[in-house]
This record gives sequence, C-alpha cells and structure tokens, in this order.
Amino acid sequence: MSETQAAFDAKTKPRGSLGALERVAVRIGALQGVAVPAVPEAAIVVVAADHGVAAEGVSAYPQEVTAQMVANFRAGGAAINVLAREAGARLEVVDAGVGAPTASIARGPAMPRAAAQGHLEAGRAIAARLVADGVGLVGVGEMGIGNTTAAAALVARLLGVDPSGVCGRGTGLDDAGLARKVEVVRRALAANPPADAVGTLAALGGFEIAQLAGVVLGCFDARVPVVLDGFITGAAALAASRIEPASVTATIAGHRSPEPGHALVLGALGLEPLLDLGLRLGEGSGAALALPLVRSALALLNEMASFADAGVTDAGR
Amino acid sequence: MSETQAAFDAKTKPRGSLGALERVAVRIGALQGVAVPAVPEAAIVVVAADHGVAAEGVSAYPQEVTAQMVANFRAGGAAINVLAREAGARLEVVDAGVGAPTASIARGPAMPRAAAQGHLEAGRAIAARLVADGVGLVGVGEMGIGNTTAAAALVARLLGVDPSGVCGRGTGLDDAGLARKVEVVRRALAANPPADAVGTLAALGGFEIAQLAGVVLGCFDARVPVVLDGFITGAAALAASRIEPASVTATIAGHRSPEPGHALVLGALGLEPLLDLGLRLGEGSGAALALPLVRSALALLNEMASFADAGVTDAGR
Repeated sequence: MSETQAAFDAKTKPRGSLGALERVAVRIGALQGVAVPAVPEAAIVVVAADHGVAAEGVSAYPQEVTAQMVANFRAGGAAINVLAREAGARLEVVDAGVGAPTASIARGPAMPRAAAQGHLEAGRAIAARLVADGVGLVGVGEMGIGNTTAAAALVARLLGVDPSGVCGRGTGLDDAGLARKVEVVRRALAANPPADAVGTLAALGGFEIAQLAGVVLGCFDARVPVVLDGFITGAAALAASRIEPASVTATIAGHRSPEPGHALVLGALGLEPLLDLGLRLGEGSGAALALPLVRSALALLNEMASFADAGVTDAGR
Repeated sequence: MSETQAAFDAKTKPRGSLGALERVAVRIGALQGVAVPAVPEAAIVVVAADHGVAAEGVSAYPQEVTAQMVANFRAGGAAINVLAREAGARLEVVDAGVGAPTASIARGPAMPRAAAQGHLEAGRAIAARLVADGVGLVGVGEMGIGNTTAAAALVARLLGVDPSGVCGRGTGLDDAGLARKVEVVRRALAANPPADAVGTLAALGGFEIAQLAGVVLGCFDARVPVVLDGFITGAAALAASRIEPASVTATIAGHRSPEPGHALVLGALGLEPLLDLGLRLGEGSGAALALPLVRSALALLNEMASFADAGVTDAGR
C-alpha cells in the first residue's frame, strides 16, 4: 500500500470512503514521491491555434471563431474565464497560431517536424514558468476550429483504430458533416505515412496540440499534476506519452467527453475521469470544473484529523 | 423552452455544450421563476442523531461514533469541515438526538408521530433561518450510526420494494452484516404497519432524517435549491416529497452513492446526480463537493458574454 493511502486510512472516515478522491491523492503522492502532497495553487493554460483542415468543412463554426473566442478569453467573457475564477485558478491564454493555420492534414503534414519540436518546447517552457511562479496544479484547455478533426486523425494513427470509431460531432456537426469529417480523417491518414511520435504530431496534430503535449511533458518534468480537459487535450497527452511514457503518471482526467474518441484515449492512458457532465465545450472547461475536486482531495489528506487525534473509534474498515 | 435555457443559448458557446450544468441552472430558474437566478451564498447543514436499531448490529461502527464524530465536526477535523471550507460554504452542525437514540425500528415505531412532526418543523426552521441570513443554496448531510438501516426501511416502505434490493454495506458491513441488516429491515417493516408520510417517518425514520426532510421542505418554501448528499438525505427528500410533492423541484442530487437503495431514490425523484466518485462517507461530503458545480452553473449564466456582446459568430447549434 502507498504511504499516501496509509495516511488517508488514518483519517476519521471509513477506509476508502472518499472513493476517487483518494485515488487522485494517491496518484499525486506517487508522482511526487511524498506521502502527503501539499495543497497546490492552480493555473489553467488554454492554447489556441488555427487548422488548415477547417477549410474542408469539418466544423459547425467558421475558422474566424478561433480568433473571436481568443478575444473573448482576453476580454473575460468566455466560459473558461468564469470557471477559472470560480476554481480560484489563474488563467493563461496562449496564441500558438491563431489566424495563421497549419496546412491541411488532408493533403499532407500539418507542419514541418521542426515546427512541432518548437511547439513542444514552447509548451514545456510554459509549464516551467508556471511552476517557477508557484503553480502546483495545471489544468489544460484549447481553442481551435477544426481541432477535433486533427485530434481524431492523431488518435486514429496512434491507436491504430478506424476513423469512424474516433470521429464525433465536435461542437455540433450534423450527420452529413460527421460523414465528411470521417472521410477527411481517412484522407489525412492516407496523405501522411506513419512516423515516430514527434513526426506524427507534425503530420496530424496542430500547433496548440503540440504545445499542449509540451505542457504535459513540462508538468511531468516538474512532477506537477496536469488535469486534462476532453478529447483534444487527451490526444495531446497521448502524443506526450509516446514521447515520454512516464508522463502519463502526471495526468489526471478532468471529465469524460461525449466525443467517441475520448473513451479510447482514456482507456489507452488508463485514466478514470472525475466528472461526467456531458460537457462538449473545450476551452479547459472540464479541467477547470475538476480542479476543486483535485484540490479537495489534497486538502482532505492534509487537513483531516486522524482517528487517534480526534478520539474517534476506528472499526478498521 | 425555458427563459433560463434561452439565456444560456445566447452565451458564447455551442448550444447545450455545458451539459448537466445547463440543466441545473434551468432547474433553479424554474424553481425561482426567474430567467437568470443569482449566484448564491452556500451553507451546509449536517444533522446528527442516534438510532436504537444500531443495537441490532447493523453497522461496522459502534454507536458511540456518532457523538465522537459530532465532536470532530465541532473541532473542525472531519471531512465535511475541509470540504465546506474548500467550497466556500458555511457549516452548521445540528444535534437532533445524539446519545438519545430512537427506539429500534425492528421492534416498533422509532418515535411518536408528534416527535416526527416536531423534527420536521425544526428542519423547516433551520432552512428559514439560513435563508433569512442570506443563504441561497443549501447542501445537506447527516451523521448517525445505523442510519442507512433506517433509510433502507423508509425507502423500502415508501417505494414498495423488497429490503434485499435496498440494503447496502453502509460504511463497511461484511456479508454476514449485510444479511443481518436485510433481516432487521424485514422485521422493521413487519413491526410497523403502513401509514401516511409523517407516520412512516415516525415509524421507520430517525430524528436526523425527519429534520432533513424538514430542511428540504423549508428550502422549497423559500425556493432555495437544496443539494442532497447520498442515500440518507435522499430518503429524507423522498419522505418530504410524500408530504409536499412539489418539494422535489427544489432538490439537486449532489452525487451517486454506491448504496443500492440510492439509485431507487434517484429514480423515484427523477434526479440526475452531478458526481459519481464512489463516495460512501456521508456527512454531506458529496453535497459539498457538488456545491461548486451548482455555483459555477449559475456563475456561467450570470457572467458569460453573449454572442452579440462579444462579437462571436453564432453557428446556431
């Protein structure tokens, strides 16, 4: 049994009765190599970028919405602004290529390999800066019209599954739109031969997806837990795990997305989502809503009395 | 479509993309008869009492633990103290009969009808006092060794189901303990003839269960949403709904408990739980963890920009 579990078992509650919260605390204790991890300060990082594949008609929204929503983030009017405030987390919005889209993955690689490496490093640097600034818990989110298509192609390739099992309606595709999306992902897989993890990110990813993979790697380097949002951040974490397999130990699944590919990602990463609210917004909304659960798990571990301290009879179960 | 849903649909996000959070806000809007309910101040009410049925060996813990845990609540060392702090909610601990147990339901009524009426009124008074003091969102919890047995008997009678389908392991019964609990509930149903809702609460409930039913009724009277915890608070809300059927419109299910009877209660009340974390602690822990989700739902409705305000293109989906 882990030292964190032993510490929880001494607290004034039946063994295991805090369910998934105990498992989250045990996971963070194992990541950090301490029995009782501190209650952390939290930040949310939202990375935004545009995708050439949006021109193939794979989204319910036009590409201009990426820039409009980034302006909305900066003005404080989006869902993630409200949720970051409610979670007591600082919010960082990163422009990784808004208005300067990748090439269409349906026709060839999204970006050169060197660009993917640069975005990975930029993501690592974001994580390092936050950690240096006292942040001990990071939630990640994204904005990018067309990015569920890129994420679907990336996941289909990395997991070797058919596009029809990975593609979903994103923010609101109809049946014809969904069929078009599956076909675009098929073309993307045909246009981009298999490669290593960085090469696959360059071929089928996006600027924000590569930076988010870098944030996951940077959080793992610092042994800081990173709360994933939905399908796109999950795809980024999956790519990160192909670069550094142990990086998955830093990840926590904030929620279960209705996107069909998300269940595949969670299964591949062995993650149990904390929330299942039918969220399909992105922006880091599901990560932000899960941050208080993660914080609460660690606060319970740090602040509850033990059976001995409180003079409560322990039935030992 | 409700006015609250229309207000959410004008916000800068795809229609319905906030899932269960939108449904919670719509529910509160309908309860209060306003399109945009205010972001409320929250309180958690934990009601504690002892149960004569504990002497029948239906709990993994001895009866003295009720008083010990109430002392732990007052000293600030229990899970609910930490979770109330994390949720930014004030915590009220109510002694409804700690160390002065009900009679054993296995042998006859738990209490006289007049006592049940008194506890219902006491619960209504707690809600009224909180509301007068500015509270607009109430989470409820309980402590009482043996109270899952009373709740199981109450739910078995109110829903007309067999005790074997309602009883669970509570805070940690083994197989023999669970079999004994089912048998005790059978004896309780045999020892107490069917009655009206108040009579059933008196016969098969407990002091804290009756007061919690009163809190639900008092919250409904004030049109203040009340977030339920697990099986016992659910049983109290079910009893409240038999006294005032519309009171269910004030209730929100904080989480899904592993107790088998809880699913029956949620189904009967038509409630969708916000969390499913495998919590089996009680104390209001699941309600406290859900409070930030409810608050966030209303904060999103109040604070997000509309498509028109933010100049974001609306795809209309």
